[in-house]
Amino acid sequence: MKKIFLSENDMPKSWYNIAADLKTEPLPPLNPGTGQPLGPEDLAPLFPMALIEQEMSPQREIAIPEPVQAALKMYRPSPLIRATGLEKALKTPAKIYFKYEGVSPAGSHKPNTAIPQAYYNQQEGVKRIATETGAGQWGSSMALAGQIFGLDVKVYMVKVSYNQKPYRRSMMQSWGAEIVSSPSPDTNFGRQVLAEDPDNTGSLGIAISEAVEDAATRDDTKYALGSVLNHVLLHQTIIGLEAKKQMEIAGCSPDIVIGCVGGGSNFAGLAFPYLRDKINGADIDFRAIEPTACPTLTRGAFAYDFGDTAQMTPLVSMYTLGHTFMPPGIHAGGLRYHGMAPLLSHVVREGLVDAYAYDQVEVFDAGAIFARTEGIIPAPESAHAIKGAVDAAIEAREAGEEQVILFNLSGHGHFDMSAYDAYHAGELTDYRPTDEELAKGLSVTEGLPKV
Amino acid sequence: MKKIFLSENDMPKSWYNIAADLKTEPLPPLNPGTGQPLGPEDLAPLFPMALIEQEMSPQREIAIPEPVQAALKMYRPSPLIRATGLEKALKTPAKIYFKYEGVSPAGSHKPNTAIPQAYYNQQEGVKRIATETGAGQWGSSMALAGQIFGLDVKVYMVKVSYNQKPYRRSMMQSWGAEIVSSPSPDTNFGRQVLAEDPDNTGSLGIAISEAVEDAATRDDTKYALGSVLNHVLLHQTIIGLEAKKQMEIAGCSPDIVIGCVGGGSNFAGLAFPYLRDKINGADIDFRAIEPTACPTLTRGAFAYDFGDTAQMTPLVSMYTLGHTFMPPGIHAGGLRYHGMAPLLSHVVREGLVDAYAYDQVEVFDAGAIFARTEGIIPAPESAHAIKGAVDAAIEAREAGEEQVILFNLSGHGHFDMSAYDAYHAGELTDYRPTDEELAKGLSVTEGLPKV
Repeated sequence: MKKIFLSENDMPKSWYNIAADLKTEPLPPLNPGTGQPLGPEDLAPLFPMALIEQEMSPQREIAIPEPVQAALKMYRPSPLIRATGLEKALKTPAKIYFKYEGVSPAGSHKPNTAIPQAYYNQQEGVKRIATETGAGQWGSSMALAGQIFGLDVKVYMVKVSYNQKPYRRSMMQSWGAEIVSSPSPDTNFGRQVLAEDPDNTGSLGIAISEAVEDAATRDDTKYALGSVLNHVLLHQTIIGLEAKKQMEIAGCSPDIVIGCVGGGSNFAGLAFPYLRDKINGADIDFRAIEPTACPTLTRGAFAYDFGDTAQMTPLVSMYTLGHTFMPPGIHAGGLRYHGMAPLLSHVVREGLVDAYAYDQVEVFDAGAIFARTEGIIPAPESAHAIKGAVDAAIEAREAGEEQVILFNLSGHGHFDMSAYDAYHAGELTDYRPTDEELAKGLSVTEGLPKV
Repeated sequence: MKKIFLSENDMPKSWYNIAADLKTEPLPPLNPGTGQPLGPEDLAPLFPMALIEQEMSPQREIAIPEPVQAALKMYRPSPLIRATGLEKALKTPAKIYFKYEGVSPAGSHKPNTAIPQAYYNQQEGVKRIATETGAGQWGSSMALAGQIFGLDVKVYMVKVSYNQKPYRRSMMQSWGAEIVSSPSPDTNFGRQVLAEDPDNTGSLGIAISEAVEDAATRDDTKYALGSVLNHVLLHQTIIGLEAKKQMEIAGCSPDIVIGCVGGGSNFAGLAFPYLRDKINGADIDFRAIEPTACPTLTRGAFAYDFGDTAQMTPLVSMYTLGHTFMPPGIHAGGLRYHGMAPLLSHVVREGLVDAYAYDQVEVFDAGAIFARTEGIIPAPESAHAIKGAVDAAIEAREAGEEQVILFNLSGHGHFDMSAYDAYHAGELTDYRPTDEELAKGLSVTEGLPKV
């Protein structure tokens, strides 16, 4: 392990907006009522105007406000690390670098967007944020950000995680958030789901519906999402912008850029600043890694779909498994989302980024090798990126090529040790949805506008 | 929060040995059989010769071997951080700085000594390390270090923690260690304790006895201790040596230096390089903070005592509650030790360092304020140091003095969230041993050599 630090003064002062460099335009989000492209006013009940502007901005660089920069400096710039221990174990001629986002107080890349989202809300007089969380990474990040900027935060936490991850709950409580198990009795949609099925274990789609309903029905409250949206991906580009400066210090440039994908934000955060180079002619291989259990990019369809189960969000063009798809309960809870960020879906569709899917056990194998050789116990989500990097490094070995691999280690696994427990005990299994399950999931997009 | 980083090149290249600067000599450790001062040969069954030499060295500076430096650079230099959020919340004119040791893969300062201990053992052909752990911080650090230098590690983990902290166990497993609940059926002493009391929940004293027995009875195995010993404190001085460089960059120098104390190593690590300045005339106030539940410095006696329950270790002169003392089950498991490092005990006795004790709930109050204002959720052990810093900052406010406070944040609380759960639920209570309990504990030192 060899670390490359940036000084605080070298932290990027603007985010990078890939919309400015795309050769083809992504399909616009639609108002589900009218079927017409969305206007800023459609989003106004949910988001502050500054974020809506970012969502639709064509500007290449968007300045990071001073108070956001100051808050990000709690943990940024994050280190770039050369995984010399892993290289040695794999006997690869490749150089493996990773950007380590687990250094944030919440333990992942999520505060990179929670902090600016809280800031812009506070600037526009919002008092309270409603949001959802799956595994708890996003909810704890939003709790932290709310604490920093003096906002109340209510988190709808997917029931299965609420019960399995009490420590993520305590973390959110430590940062002053209110947490409820979703589906909850606190919203109309939650009550409806519970009436139909009191034992429903929840899903990200349901929790989003609850948080959106909460925000849409209270004047003092806006909604916040931890992935998928353009402004979220924008905020995460600080990862790739830092990485570029650090790779320059290291004296090399990546041939392959890898990240795991759930909603797409950590991958996009690292990849988009490099994708700009590829659009401009550079030869870089981009690999988005997802779980076979929730194979949005590798087995989903590109279609207009809702972001949530209750059909409360706009319709967005994206790879999707259908907004009612219930992925199996794998330990990479952050990757269990039916859709994929529209901007990332667009560049996958354009052939700029390739998608790969891996099974749960082989992902934990890679995570375990990493823990032994680099010391860091990765989040199960991030272990997908590690598995991608391990395979790329083995390819390089077999081809005898000195490739430079760069991946995003989006978070640590300190709150996922029960999954490692199960792994060490040999109790983990793989899950792949059948073709029938996928077809059933996708059937919900049939009546919607076509791409 | 404002961070001050050191570059890897500025990481100290030697440790600081306070023995070279003490005006009075500490009392020597004794062979319990002969009552005579210990020679190197007495320790040879347990430790490699390089560590025995360090234990007894009068040299001021001891070089850090290159491979140890390389391994420490996994996470070092650790950041020095100015707690601007906490300062603001306390409305204090004091500047509060802390050294953050939670950045290590194990989450605490413990790898600072686990890494060199593993290295010296490996250099002398040792294949296997036996050690004990209370809350799991030390065991996981030794597991990590064993992994780095190719040693097998067996950890005797105090039963109450073994059952309460399964995630620390998984962490040790991830780093390849073998873990057993102590008292265990794997040693004579463990079997004896279990025969007398099958429900014995264990103590650090018992676990040390088991690990020492394991090491003393196997040719391929040595013993490793995570605190108390001179060479452990020596290795931890890298904290204070880095802090001095970083405080210089910050343009100031501490008036008050604070750390929590269990065995004494994290406190000594930060404090000893500054204590040298005090010995040479500087006006610095040193505060060692312990729990009222295990009040070794504030209510114990300075005496010759054993380091372990089974009386297998040498006799050392230290503040002690008696080697059979069973501290109540507070959440700061790392501070539940009956003794205190002889070197630290010596400087407390000489009046160079003052001791303070705090109750459990007020310590968690301080930890909770810190989590809200600085974002980092502290280990319950480290929250004692925070409480010390908070009180010092309030004193400064009341006196209207711009004091500079420096404390050691020895670890994060990611594996202690159940304690925060109990705290948020209002379920934590305070425990103070009665005078009778303390007198009973100390009675075991009566037949031993006098100081």
